Amino acid sequence: MSDVKRIKPSLSKGTRDFLPSEVAKRNYIFNTIKSVLRKYGFEEIETPAIEKLETLTGKYGEEGDKLLFKILNSGDYLTEIRNGKYEIRNLDPKEITPLIAEKGLRYDLTVPLARYVVQHQDDLAFPFKRFHIGPVWRADRPQKGRYQEFYQCDADVIGSNSLLNEVELTKIYVEVLSQLRIANCKIRINSRKILEALAEYANCKDLITVITVVIDKLDKIGIEGVKTELNKLNLSQVQQEKILALLQTKTLTELSSVLGNIEKGKKGIEELNLTFKNVNSKNLFFDITLARGLNYYTGIIWEVVCNDVQIGSLGGGGRYDNLTEMFGAQNMSGVGISFGIERIYDVLEELQLFPENITQGVKVLFVPREESVEEFTFQQVQLLRDAGIAAEIFLGNVKKQKQFNYVEQKHIAYLVEIGGNEVQSGKFRLRNSQTRDTEVDLTTDDIISRLS
Amino acid sequence: MSDVKRIKPSLSKGTRDFLPSEVAKRNYIFNTIKSVLRKYGFEEIETPAIEKLETLTGKYGEEGDKLLFKILNSGDYLTEIRNGKYEIRNLDPKEITPLIAEKGLRYDLTVPLARYVVQHQDDLAFPFKRFHIGPVWRADRPQKGRYQEFYQCDADVIGSNSLLNEVELTKIYVEVLSQLRIANCKIRINSRKILEALAEYANCKDLITVITVVIDKLDKIGIEGVKTELNKLNLSQVQQEKILALLQTKTLTELSSVLGNIEKGKKGIEELNLTFKNVNSKNLFFDITLARGLNYYTGIIWEVVCNDVQIGSLGGGGRYDNLTEMFGAQNMSGVGISFGIERIYDVLEELQLFPENITQGVKVLFVPREESVEEFTFQQVQLLRDAGIAAEIFLGNVKKQKQFNYVEQKHIAYLVEIGGNEVQSGKFRLRNSQTRDTEVDLTTDDIISRLS
Repeated sequence: MSDVKRIKPSLSKGTRDFLPSEVAKRNYIFNTIKSVLRKYGFEEIETPAIEKLETLTGKYGEEGDKLLFKILNSGDYLTEIRNGKYEIRNLDPKEITPLIAEKGLRYDLTVPLARYVVQHQDDLAFPFKRFHIGPVWRADRPQKGRYQEFYQCDADVIGSNSLLNEVELTKIYVEVLSQLRIANCKIRINSRKILEALAEYANCKDLITVITVVIDKLDKIGIEGVKTELNKLNLSQVQQEKILALLQTKTLTELSSVLGNIEKGKKGIEELNLTFKNVNSKNLFFDITLARGLNYYTGIIWEVVCNDVQIGSLGGGGRYDNLTEMFGAQNMSGVGISFGIERIYDVLEELQLFPENITQGVKVLFVPREESVEEFTFQQVQLLRDAGIAAEIFLGNVKKQKQFNYVEQKHIAYLVEIGGNEVQSGKFRLRNSQTRDTEVDLTTDDIISRLS
Repeated sequence: MSDVKRIKPSLSKGTRDFLPSEVAKRNYIFNTIKSVLRKYGFEEIETPAIEKLETLTGKYGEEGDKLLFKILNSGDYLTEIRNGKYEIRNLDPKEITPLIAEKGLRYDLTVPLARYVVQHQDDLAFPFKRFHIGPVWRADRPQKGRYQEFYQCDADVIGSNSLLNEVELTKIYVEVLSQLRIANCKIRINSRKILEALAEYANCKDLITVITVVIDKLDKIGIEGVKTELNKLNLSQVQQEKILALLQTKTLTELSSVLGNIEKGKKGIEELNLTFKNVNSKNLFFDITLARGLNYYTGIIWEVVCNDVQIGSLGGGGRYDNLTEMFGAQNMSGVGISFGIERIYDVLEELQLFPENITQGVKVLFVPREESVEEFTFQQVQLLRDAGIAAEIFLGNVKKQKQFNYVEQKHIAYLVEIGGNEVQSGKFRLRNSQTRDTEVDLTTDDIISRLS
């Protein structure tokens, strides 16, 4: 730290620091999700932040490739260019980047999962039920609620075709949302098979991808917008009407009378019926207009929204069939859900749903009134700690105001001040920081049994 | 995921995946450290992986700067070079890097802490007691036990001069090591003030830094090596002998008789005496030969080693006085310790100190013998989960061997197989996976009360 430049410090754009109270709240969300997932047999894994660019590139479309953070090769990364090993035609990132960067930061947790499963398949127990919580990085333009470094939280089952996995994952959504006390929410559910049947029913099977994209926009552009978009697709009036009529369908029974004779439709309806039969929740809704943009989904799809806060989805997922294919491995079916923990945080904050005790610091703060009693005070605090009680000694500024701020900011429940009298008598006054009630003449042992 | 290239997947060098059992073990270490730190009033913070290079550069010496991972600017990062805004004289990383990379990955958690404290000083409660556990990145040549991406775990107190902080941190080391059951270890402790007094005593105050570096190497080069190095420093025979004699000192009493009259020495001895008086541990040792390389330490310094495993230090730390200065802020004294969690992991593994239950999966696995009983089986499992019991249904390969592997790999304690008979009778056989003992004729309710 010798060659020190003095600069006013700031964060790189789109990144964040977290204050202790924020970390406590985030941990509350993580721990809630983790405990439910563990109860269902999901195990935690971790993959590195840095991946080879060859692992990441080409998996997220051209737009995604642009948003990958690329890491400069170490050492003298220009040697080979200088030596003329490569002929540079244009000073163009497309040409230069592959020569000077071979690593990048992961863009999501899905491609690393695919790599992980292929690479470690001999060491994993299948069906492989894993969850992964960690940061991902995207060179997106930062804006409100959108960061360049943010957390994802995914739970997936790899290598099992059973539909009961879908039932389990739906249950997990229900249980996590209930534990987080987000009562007024919707778990929207649909099956890609139903959308395929819809396209078949409207006699435009080949347009399934485009139609899915249009339906996916329904939330944003409304039913009129969907009409306009369908119009552009060269569909006949009858075809358009068939699609629009189906999009009004509210129940599976209703849907069954229309799509029940189409194989895909029948299958999709069965999938959803099994789920509804085994998941009894007032928050679960069939929604034929749920499409989910990613075209690798093949079965059931989910999306979670909170009705009280305009913030986009709090989670989503679905069944997919080609996860590991990108790494040349035998195809394994997978199904997974994600939790949008950054948005869940905002919802809990806005609806004031964070439990109060999660930001609580230690139980009691001992404040020595003068330096000469510090060591004695420390010894009392240590007795509490040895008894398993979280306790602190205040070793800072002697100003009362600073001490009160400390208690308030760290949400410390009790306060004990110690001066010469207390040292002599061995009896202390315990004050409740909130109610200001005090108990007097307590020994350290009394305080221990009082706070245990 | 359309434009898919098939490649055999591999990790970027110096990075690692973690299997579920490894994550469980790492979490055990993290949680042990966190729970002790929280009991002492330390709060968790988080800072981003990505920092501005201007924040990182110049803080770790020239060698450190080279080891920073630098991130290519997004978009067309060559525009300004192409447009001739900068005149390129040499295709040299020193000249080019600042033009194409303005962000990097954090190299440790200390510089981010300094930035954090300066930036958020109005929002923090001082003394600020924080801990931070997270990955850092270094473009070091990977080798056994050395990675390019690895975790650090730091606890620091900023803004308090009280020596009782040192006592607390020593206690924390003792408690964490004891909870991790690393019994045969040494917490070596010294004070930089004593080393300064040593230099003063040998009449070579100006050589304190060099002498510290030499002493720091004692472990590696032995006392003979130290002699050779001292010889090179142009010290008289008397001076050298004074230093060498002092390095043999084993007790503070002994030391006091030599350095007790030098102001710095007296102060250093007082610091250590206070610590020993308040920390009663057979693992705590005064060690005058402990120097710690980093020259920003000013007071007490620590280093933790395990006697049973040759692996280097499991942690270290000390008091420093100029943390926030690098960002132009008012000087705040700090003191901190770190836990080398990667090495602690290796020690626990080698000494087989990980508790067995930490890698345990769910309590019980229900295996449906045929597809027709899957839904029934699922419903029983769900009853257990609703009662708070971690349980799973096996939805994979029907081969017995695969099922046994699953139970074994996930360390599942009990097994229940379900076929047509069980569905009809509603009575199940619960088998202990380890002892193979079975209990028969149990209802789901029986199993719930049995496993609760």
